[in-house]
Amino acid sequence: MILIKRALLSVHDKTGLVPLARTLSEIGCELISTGGTRKALEEAGLSVTDISSVTKNPEAFGGRVKTLSFQICGSLLFDRKKDSAEASRLGIEPLDLVVCNLYPFQKVWERGASLPELIEEIDIGGVTLIRAGAKNFAGVAVVVDPQDYESIGKELISTGGRLALETRRRLMRKAFHHVADYDAAISVAMDQQDGQESLRLSFTDGAPLRYGENPHQKARVYRKSSSFAPFVALQGKELSYNNYLDLQSAVDTVAGLSRPACAVIKHTNPCGIAEGDSLKRLLEVAWEGDPTSAFGSVIAFNRPLGEHDLACLELDHTDKSRRRFVEIVVAPEFSKEALSYMAHATNLRAVVHTRQGSATDVDLRLLDGLLLRQDRDSAAEESLSDKTNRPVDPSISGLIRFGINAVRQVKSNAIVIVRALADGTFQLLGMGSGQPNRVDSVRLAVRKARENLEREARDQALSMETHVTTELTRAVLVSDAFFPFPDSMDACSEAGVRTIIQPGGSIRDQAVIRRCDELGLSMAFTGRRHFKH
Amino acid sequence: MILIKRALLSVHDKTGLVPLARTLSEIGCELISTGGTRKALEEAGLSVTDISSVTKNPEAFGGRVKTLSFQICGSLLFDRKKDSAEASRLGIEPLDLVVCNLYPFQKVWERGASLPELIEEIDIGGVTLIRAGAKNFAGVAVVVDPQDYESIGKELISTGGRLALETRRRLMRKAFHHVADYDAAISVAMDQQDGQESLRLSFTDGAPLRYGENPHQKARVYRKSSSFAPFVALQGKELSYNNYLDLQSAVDTVAGLSRPACAVIKHTNPCGIAEGDSLKRLLEVAWEGDPTSAFGSVIAFNRPLGEHDLACLELDHTDKSRRRFVEIVVAPEFSKEALSYMAHATNLRAVVHTRQGSATDVDLRLLDGLLLRQDRDSAAEESLSDKTNRPVDPSISGLIRFGINAVRQVKSNAIVIVRALADGTFQLLGMGSGQPNRVDSVRLAVRKARENLEREARDQALSMETHVTTELTRAVLVSDAFFPFPDSMDACSEAGVRTIIQPGGSIRDQAVIRRCDELGLSMAFTGRRHFKH
Repeated sequence: MILIKRALLSVHDKTGLVPLARTLSEIGCELISTGGTRKALEEAGLSVTDISSVTKNPEAFGGRVKTLSFQICGSLLFDRKKDSAEASRLGIEPLDLVVCNLYPFQKVWERGASLPELIEEIDIGGVTLIRAGAKNFAGVAVVVDPQDYESIGKELISTGGRLALETRRRLMRKAFHHVADYDAAISVAMDQQDGQESLRLSFTDGAPLRYGENPHQKARVYRKSSSFAPFVALQGKELSYNNYLDLQSAVDTVAGLSRPACAVIKHTNPCGIAEGDSLKRLLEVAWEGDPTSAFGSVIAFNRPLGEHDLACLELDHTDKSRRRFVEIVVAPEFSKEALSYMAHATNLRAVVHTRQGSATDVDLRLLDGLLLRQDRDSAAEESLSDKTNRPVDPSISGLIRFGINAVRQVKSNAIVIVRALADGTFQLLGMGSGQPNRVDSVRLAVRKARENLEREARDQALSMETHVTTELTRAVLVSDAFFPFPDSMDACSEAGVRTIIQPGGSIRDQAVIRRCDELGLSMAFTGRRHFKH
Repeated sequence: MILIKRALLSVHDKTGLVPLARTLSEIGCELISTGGTRKALEEAGLSVTDISSVTKNPEAFGGRVKTLSFQICGSLLFDRKKDSAEASRLGIEPLDLVVCNLYPFQKVWERGASLPELIEEIDIGGVTLIRAGAKNFAGVAVVVDPQDYESIGKELISTGGRLALETRRRLMRKAFHHVADYDAAISVAMDQQDGQESLRLSFTDGAPLRYGENPHQKARVYRKSSSFAPFVALQGKELSYNNYLDLQSAVDTVAGLSRPACAVIKHTNPCGIAEGDSLKRLLEVAWEGDPTSAFGSVIAFNRPLGEHDLACLELDHTDKSRRRFVEIVVAPEFSKEALSYMAHATNLRAVVHTRQGSATDVDLRLLDGLLLRQDRDSAAEESLSDKTNRPVDPSISGLIRFGINAVRQVKSNAIVIVRALADGTFQLLGMGSGQPNRVDSVRLAVRKARENLEREARDQALSMETHVTTELTRAVLVSDAFFPFPDSMDACSEAGVRTIIQPGGSIRDQAVIRRCDELGLSMAFTGRRHFKH
């Protein structure tokens, strides 16, 4: 504990200043202050020592030099144990507290200020006070954030004017964050003024993960500074590196859909998606998109989850072999009953995700000595432009939007086949991902769709070929990028798919359209590619 | 231009100090200095003004306060246009040059110093001098890097003691980089002392890319601060975002192989790889891994590229339809002849890549408000452990290593089939990537391998089934992660594959091994998973 007998206050943001100063005054602390800060304190009726009477210098050069002096820097920096005799020889009294925040450089920069304006916002004295006080936290407390004034005030009152080492140390770390952020902004802004682009990123609250993508890779997760906590685990075992990757894909997939929706994610690819009315039915429908792969998946919903919505997982079935194994369920909210039901599966995690726009706006990739940074591929309405003799049925535009949202989340080359069920539910019926050529992805999506339809026909005792043909005729195939050759049109036609949506943009678009016309297929272009790697 | 009449020198790193000071002295500049710096200059026979005679204060508190003073800060900060009269009233003469570098905080931190040691390395005076001089670059030059001394000395001599605005501005930006890096290190180190993990990353030389993964996404590429330039384009059109992603995969794939090697990359997945002797033959063999997908690929080599190594691309064929379209060739070096040959394809890029160890050691992923950071999945020897009644043939361990290196680069779930040709060349014969379940990836790899072998039999007029069977019997199938069910063993056996390598680790390993024994397959475990998402 140190007793706070002498405090220097020099703040740009005056929020909360007076109540803190009043507390300091009440505990008998001398207040030393500069320019505008002094004025604010005196107007509140507080007695203030002018900085000039300490430094023995005037405030000079339009305020550029106010606190910077041998006396003030010495008061902050001398070692309270070793240097006390020297300090009193030099007539330097200790300063025990610095309350300081800086010129608002970031704000002025963001509103596009000119270089001369920016230069005036580069705080020299304030940064020196903060850094000096923080360095000497053994004897000094430094407060940079008005949000801390209340707790500091309380501690001062409850201790008779003292601040604990623990408090000073916490404040010291915050002070160094503050100046590191400040100088990062100045450095990037000055580069920008000279047409140089630099990037300084800051992350906090690092925590070790058990391992990375594989057990021999060490990994950590950090929070983006000043950002919300996006994934909050309510129950189940710890989240892994791969869980986080899947969670992001899962949430991205359902966030792009306006009606209630469910997505089933495996290795970052959606293998099941459904959009419609009841979450309970949507999980059943999504699961049927790939019932083999859905085991061990991450499942996302875009609506609060209720008691019976996960019923088809049969987590409480007495025959354990009937229970469906899932890694994570993520939703904006869980009812108490939903959580109790999930607790039947010991390791199953319930994760809350509340999407907030701005936190998700960039992608980063670190390569050998390089960083790639891009805007996220955010959801956007696509406008369709018919290309074939047979136009695309305008009544299925909702289904097409569903398909485009799905294909955006599948690793390239990506193909999805989607359909509308009788009750208006949309379903991902088959997907082809990660193939080095497009026609292989078409074949994968078709095979998965056929598999699902054949199983459905068996389960419902329908005529297999009739069912498969009817459903594929009504389905839509969506491609994430253009078809480079007409071969995929033949694969679609052979499979019985009649409607194709793609961005277009190949030098062979005309050949592809011609082949559609020859085969009697409908095709529309979106004009927007959705590669994802 | 400003005339440098008065300079303050205060450096921790004394490299190159004396020659610069001598130049300053020769042009008639007054040298002001502190402690150790002054001693070094005086020993070199230079005349130095002691800082105390300027500040009118002693160097105090064991050196904690030397330069910090109203006089020095004023000398650096006053506006040369507006404040000159005030400065002379206050007896403050301008300082025109600051030569300063800081206590080596980063170095002391890296060697694991204690908190008290770290605190002594937090430079307060130096940071203040640098920041004050940089803010006032209109009238002051700040030199923080001994590497700049020579060019500064030359400019001073050639201009009769002056430094240009452009020079001062460039130095100003470097000065703010220096203090931003310094305070970033302090902030992270102080957090670490309190068990908090934070991360501050810095990137420079940002340049816009035409777009990101897709045309509607804005993107930039940055250099990792103080890192080498890893990908240098010698000719061809500009590199795109997706090119960079593919380049990284391409280089990673061949870097893990010790013999000469070639890899063909599409959408970040290798669809062809070969390791052997001559690059010319390796490209032919790699291309045959997937001759459909190889069009539009990125091709990497791990040896300097000579005149005829790209011959099979037929870039100069008079029949343009015979020319093979490739996006990029990347290699550690290109001969002049190789570049001339490549110039036949207008847009084809030649990219030099020199891998240097430490730049490539971490992966970053930015999610909603989170950053994931992990060690790269670096190459490492795997030790094989036989699991089946039929042991894996120990003579094929080289081929197995080749297969493991290949599967590491394929997006999960990943399966590769590899074989050794008669001349000892290893070839990727088939790969399955990006599937949500493992047996689908097995089926993809098998189908691609069969396709390739059937084409080979046709081309060489061999008996198709005999050729396919013989080759698959001698091939090795490698999986990036364990087989969760025995179904993949049946798929292997049906295809004729007899040797399987996988990490193991499933709760059903015993059932998988049993199934191998029933089918007469050989299987070994590596104990090391290689997921890549």
